[in-house]
Amino acid sequence: MPNSSPGSSTPPKAAVLRGLEPRDRETLALLLQGTEMFYAAEIAVAMELIDLGLTPGGGGYEFAVAAAANDPEGRAVGYACFGLNPMSDGVFDLYWIAVDRRAQGSGVGRALLTHVESVVAGRGGRSVMIETGGKASYAPTRAFYLACGYREVARLLDFFRVGDDKLMYEKRLSS
Amino acid sequence: MPNSSPGSSTPPKAAVLRGLEPRDRETLALLLQGTEMFYAAEIAVAMELIDLGLTPGGGGYEFAVAAAANDPEGRAVGYACFGLNPMSDGVFDLYWIAVDRRAQGSGVGRALLTHVESVVAGRGGRSVMIETGGKASYAPTRAFYLACGYREVARLLDFFRVGDDKLMYEKRLSS
Repeated sequence: MPNSSPGSSTPPKAAVLRGLEPRDRETLALLLQGTEMFYAAEIAVAMELIDLGLTPGGGGYEFAVAAAANDPEGRAVGYACFGLNPMSDGVFDLYWIAVDRRAQGSGVGRALLTHVESVVAGRGGRSVMIETGGKASYAPTRAFYLACGYREVARLLDFFRVGDDKLMYEKRLSS
Repeated sequence: MPNSSPGSSTPPKAAVLRGLEPRDRETLALLLQGTEMFYAAEIAVAMELIDLGLTPGGGGYEFAVAAAANDPEGRAVGYACFGLNPMSDGVFDLYWIAVDRRAQGSGVGRALLTHVESVVAGRGGRSVMIETGGKASYAPTRAFYLACGYREVARLLDFFRVGDDKLMYEKRLSS
């Protein structure tokens, strides 16, 4: 069924979505480094969550992996990590989303985010929240969230460092 | 040296501050239940942090315990749990603060919070952040933070449950 809401159309089959697999570990480590968006300490945290995601139980962290639709081997070109905020009865946090630098702008990020929202909605979740940074290098990231229907709900001045704010975005899911 | 800033005077010697000790565990469990402010799941989390605080290393959770100034046995009548937010270079989160119901209104909470701020400032911390709830039963808690110089910096509507917002308060510490 076509989705007619403005701003939420996706390119046809930008990506195939699947679960996290052990073979993704190395691919995602290289992918995270290749984006040149994250500090080493941030990548270390991202990899800890990936390792948790590969462990039975998973500690409440859920994953969606995107592979290029035209890649028969289904190699990861992006992923998202999310989970229910344990203090809330229906707010899910998007902990991480990253797309291979070479695949950026091709709809992979949007496909991942739309998939996460579907999973969350199917689980009875009310909204998805995202925390990100206010610095200039994150401008494309913020524009992406806004284009995907998220709105800024909080801005914590100087949170990460003086002059580097924390921004919080939210999208309410229709039930 | 007297503190002349408005609203920050404390009653003389409301409490003696000290570190967390193993004997506090049972006292604090009863204290948390006695406040009738927390859900069982919240108390379970608070006790997990207390157990971490009693473990060498402590996982980044720091504690201040208040005892009544006139109690020779120094029994805990309140405590605070706080720590550096690992994403920030100088923002400390106040994870928990609770005062024995029978000691509320006697300046113990303010003494605890002032002490936490001193420790944070001495550690080079820039600010203290507190998350709390927007529901009516938390009105005295919110009034307490405002009276202690905190200001609301974010309000996440319906965060905990529909109609139950999450509020974030911050106090910038002068360096």
